Formats: sequence, C-alpha cells, structure tokens
Amino acid sequence: MTEIQSPDTAKPAGKIMLVGIGPGSQAHMTARAREAIAEADVVIGYVTYIKLVAELLEGKEVVRKGMTEELDRAVSALEAARAGKKVALISSGDAGVYGMAGPTFEVLFQAGWTPDDEVKVEIVPGASALNACAALVGAPLTHDFCAISLSDLLTPWPVIARRLDAVASADFVVALYNPKSGRRTRQIVEAQRLFLRHRRADTPVAIVKSAYRRRERIEFSTLDRMAEADIGMLTTVLIGNSHTFVRHGLMVTPRGYANKYDLDAGGDTREGEKPGRSLSTGLLGWLDTLQAEHAAGASAEALALRHRLPLDYIVSTLSEPVEAAELADAATAGDEA
Amino acid sequence: MTEIQSPDTAKPAGKIMLVGIGPGSQAHMTARAREAIAEADVVIGYVTYIKLVAELLEGKEVVRKGMTEELDRAVSALEAARAGKKVALISSGDAGVYGMAGPTFEVLFQAGWTPDDEVKVEIVPGASALNACAALVGAPLTHDFCAISLSDLLTPWPVIARRLDAVASADFVVALYNPKSGRRTRQIVEAQRLFLRHRRADTPVAIVKSAYRRRERIEFSTLDRMAEADIGMLTTVLIGNSHTFVRHGLMVTPRGYANKYDLDAGGDTREGEKPGRSLSTGLLGWLDTLQAEHAAGASAEALALRHRLPLDYIVSTLSEPVEAAELADAATAGDEA
Repeated sequence: MTEIQSPDTAKPAGKIMLVGIGPGSQAHMTARAREAIAEADVVIGYVTYIKLVAELLEGKEVVRKGMTEELDRAVSALEAARAGKKVALISSGDAGVYGMAGPTFEVLFQAGWTPDDEVKVEIVPGASALNACAALVGAPLTHDFCAISLSDLLTPWPVIARRLDAVASADFVVALYNPKSGRRTRQIVEAQRLFLRHRRADTPVAIVKSAYRRRERIEFSTLDRMAEADIGMLTTVLIGNSHTFVRHGLMVTPRGYANKYDLDAGGDTREGEKPGRSLSTGLLGWLDTLQAEHAAGASAEALALRHRLPLDYIVSTLSEPVEAAELADAATAGDEA
Repeated sequence: MTEIQSPDTAKPAGKIMLVGIGPGSQAHMTARAREAIAEADVVIGYVTYIKLVAELLEGKEVVRKGMTEELDRAVSALEAARAGKKVALISSGDAGVYGMAGPTFEVLFQAGWTPDDEVKVEIVPGASALNACAALVGAPLTHDFCAISLSDLLTPWPVIARRLDAVASADFVVALYNPKSGRRTRQIVEAQRLFLRHRRADTPVAIVKSAYRRRERIEFSTLDRMAEADIGMLTTVLIGNSHTFVRHGLMVTPRGYANKYDLDAGGDTREGEKPGRSLSTGLLGWLDTLQAEHAAGASAEALALRHRLPLDYIVSTLSEPVEAAELADAATAGDEA
C-alpha cells in the first residue's frame, strides 16, 4: 500500500500490519512477514510470540501483552498508528486464523475507521498451526478438513459441541486449536465423547506441541486414548477421518486415488472411470443413479436414507434432472485447468 | 535432515522436498520454501505453479506436468531421488492441503519406501489458498472454519454433499476449493442449494481468483447470488457464518468478544462474565445449567431439542455432573498461557 503524507500536518501516515509469523522458526516465516517487522516502528504481540521474533526487534518499540488482551493489543496498535507509526501486530501462524485480524477490525470499525482513513491496514498471511503440524506428521490434511477451537472463553459450549458433532459425523479431518489449558481440562474429554459417537476408537490422532519451535513434541495416539495425552495451550490436535492411517510413523489421509486408479495394478484406471473426469459416483453420475433408483420405485424417503442426505435435498435434486446439455458440456469441455 | 553418502556406491542420497510455495508471489513464500527450490536439482510441478517460480529455476531440470497427473509427478520425483537427485515437488499454497504431500506418500508406500530409506522426505509448509484469500478480503476466518473441495474427480458426490450439509448446519465459515471447472459447473449450484437450507440468503460470500498473482480478482457476493459469479479453477469461494458481515469492502467474522465485553461501553466486561475465564455459557457453566434444567423437570429429550445436540450426548453429560474438584481447578488454575 502506498503511504500518503497527510497534507495538513505533514505527519507521516501510520499503518497497521497484521503479520502472521508462521509456526515460529524464521525458516517458515514469509519474506513479507519478515520485511513488515523490519519496517515497523512498533511491534505488538503476545509475550510468547514476541520471543519468537526477538532477533528482528533491535531498535524497535516493543509492546508485550497477555494472552487474553487481544482487544487491548488492537487498541494500542491503532493509537500508535494514529500517531504516525508503522505498527506490526504479530500473530503466530496466520493472522487471520484465530489471530489478530478479527479483533483488530472489530476495534477499528468501533473507532470509526474506514479503508479511506489515513491509517492503512495490511494483512500478511502465514502458515497456520494446522499447516505446520500437518507438515511434521505426514499428510493428514490431504482431504476436507476443519479447524475448531475448544476455547469457551468467547464461544458458548453448545456452539462448539454442535460443530464437533457435525464434522465428526461428516468424516472431516479436524484440527483442534486451544484444546486444553490449566482451567479448561474437560473440553477435550467432551470432544472425544462427541467424536466417538461417529468414529472408530482407533482413529489416528496426532498431538503436536510447539511445532518448529525449540520444545517441539509429536505424539501419535488414537481417538479413545487422546484425552490422556500431554495436551496444553501450545498443542494442536489432529484427528484423522475414517480413511486416515499411520504407517512408519507418518499420518496420511488418502486423497482418493484408489477410487479411480488401481494402485496395486500399476495405476491402471478402474473400470467405468476416466482420468481427468468426474468419478462415475460424481455429481452427474450420482444424479443419474438417483433418477434411475427413483424410476425403479424407490421413494424420496428411501433415497434420503440410502444416501444419508436430507429428504428435501433429495426431493429438490429429483425435480431437476441432469439435462442433456449439461452432460454434453461435461463431455466436451477441456480438461480441468 | 542430514544427507548421508550411501556407502556401497558413494552415490549421493536423494531427497524429495514437498514444497508449498504459498499463493504465488515470492513475497508470500517462506524462506525454507525458497531455499528448498534453490538446493533442488530437479523441480517438478503443475505447469501453472512452475511459471510462478520461473525466476528461481535457472540451471535446474524442470518437469512440467498436467493438472490431473499428481501420481505421475510423485513417481517422477521418486525416480529422480533414487538416482541421487534432490527434488522439489512444488504445490501452490500448502503442500499438505489438497497438495502433493498425500499422493507422494501414497506412491512412496506403494514402492516400499520407509523413513529409513536412503531417499529422505521433507515437507515445507506454506500459506494455503484459504489463508491468502482471507488476508485479501479482511478477516473472514476468525472463527471455526472448514475447507471442502467441490471436485468429484476423486470423491463421490454424496460424501461432498454430506459435508456441505453438516458444516452449513453447524455454522462454520467455509472455504470451497476447486469450486468449478469447464466440465464441472453444477457442483457450485448444488453447494448453494445445500447451504441455503441452513443459512440466510444474504450470507456474505467472497470470491477470490488468483490471490497475490497478476490476475488477482476479488468479488463480494451473497449466498443466493454466488453461483452467478465468475468462478473457475483458480478461484476460492469463502462463505461466511451467521455472524459474518461485510463493512467498507471488508469481510469480517467476529471472534465473539461481544459475548463477553460491551464494545459500545468502552469494552467493559458484561455482567456475569470474567476476563480470561470461560463464558458463563462455556462448558462448566452449561453443564450446570443442564443439570438445573433437568432437576427442574426438563427431560433429556426436551434438553436435546432445546440445545440442538444429540440425545445420547445429553444423556451422557447428565450422567457425569461437574465435580466440585473440577470447579475448584477452574477457579484456581493460572490464566490461559
């Protein structure tokens, strides 16, 4: 963003940079994150994060805040920026994922700030804890995944519980943030209870503490034993989906190549499937099957049960059969690119 | 990882580096990603990603592959590494999120590889598309979120549909990857249909194409209109939760500070809440309420309906009331840190 001299006061315009520093080691920080801290007059952050970037702070004003003082950090950043300073407000991981980007905009809007304000705002993305932890344990996030914070400091428990139940049921890989603290010890037990309603007891779980930091610690567990593991506020818990496996100390969630290719037979395409095309059980194929099953006498209710989807969704898809034009498009359009 | 000379042949041991290059601009690449490409003899990737790092490739062997040739890329990487070469297998975003980490381990295990093999494997995390896109539109991911790929090339549609339904219902912010292609045009319409069963028609949606690349394009829409937007394979679609709003062209999901603090009254703590502590509707407070409601005559069935949680979860929590010891721990333990 271009900096503009404020014409009436000749005071330099301030700037707030919301910087995601990645997991903590400088090797995994982006060039822009490093540069943003370098150009900052003031660096504000939770004490632990300030320590992680200590060697970049020489000559800078440093404001260390407590863990629960997010709004306070944002207010301090705005004050410093209003005084014409460049402020780096640092978050570990990504500034947008349970980081300072949210609370800062809440404070800015409350203070009447708009993007036309002389104080400019830049968000610098980074690798979040789930990316870093996944990289250390193998490839657990290769399929659809969710991030859920178990902290009930700002979120009512029923909201968290409903989310845990929904994603456990729909077979997502799940990253639990803020799984446990000195005061919050039962949340992880309740999460386990909700997951065990839907997932096998031996579902792989990886428990990663302080990824890419000095005290990094990785532990593999299973759903039925995970609550007994050493878990704290610097831990991320990764729960696999029903296909996730651990082999040779690596946690891997298959992407689904085995649905299309016979990996044992040198990667030949399975009968009825085509490389570069939707599966035969993909959307159009499935819609066709649904129509055929319905034509053969299956009621919408029976189909909803069979395919484990809501009745009204089944009814509405049945009312919009695949048109010949759609099938023709799907057959003639270029490969995905 | 230390490189070891293979003693019998004196051939240098090969290495596969699974590199997440971030969104595409070098500013948002990590130091380790840059370094990994620099030390590679061979760089393998999808043609579009190879172009993004073109200026880092001088003097290297470059292998460009098509979009659907992931297994092929992994096989080529293993062959080159077996021949003693250092291979950077690049993914845009994070190598672990719908990237090359998964297929590579599938191919390696199939080939009998173990971590004791002379070919070493390193995963270099990066900022995924959801991190990059979020940074460009504001702070949409500040609360629990999910990533779902709409591609049915490897995943049956009912699996995708169940996931869309579950997370729409449980009020997650959702990032849709691979939302649409030349052949796959109806998936985004079906996703919209499933979301509209649970979310308001005016739920904010951000459509981000080629984040941090030359042809970057950002469009704000709403749930009821999103399928009409210009969406392709280089697009990520971010759907807000029930609290997400767009103000001054910024999409923000509140973290929940308003549940605890009165932001209009200068940030005073709301009655019954304490800074640094769980909400009164947090787990222990909620369990207490549940017991009280049950004691006052509400059946488990009525409580399940009232709190929108599964009956057997309500029954099991009722059978394990909060113990005095838990409450004492929660009251006396240190603040979250």
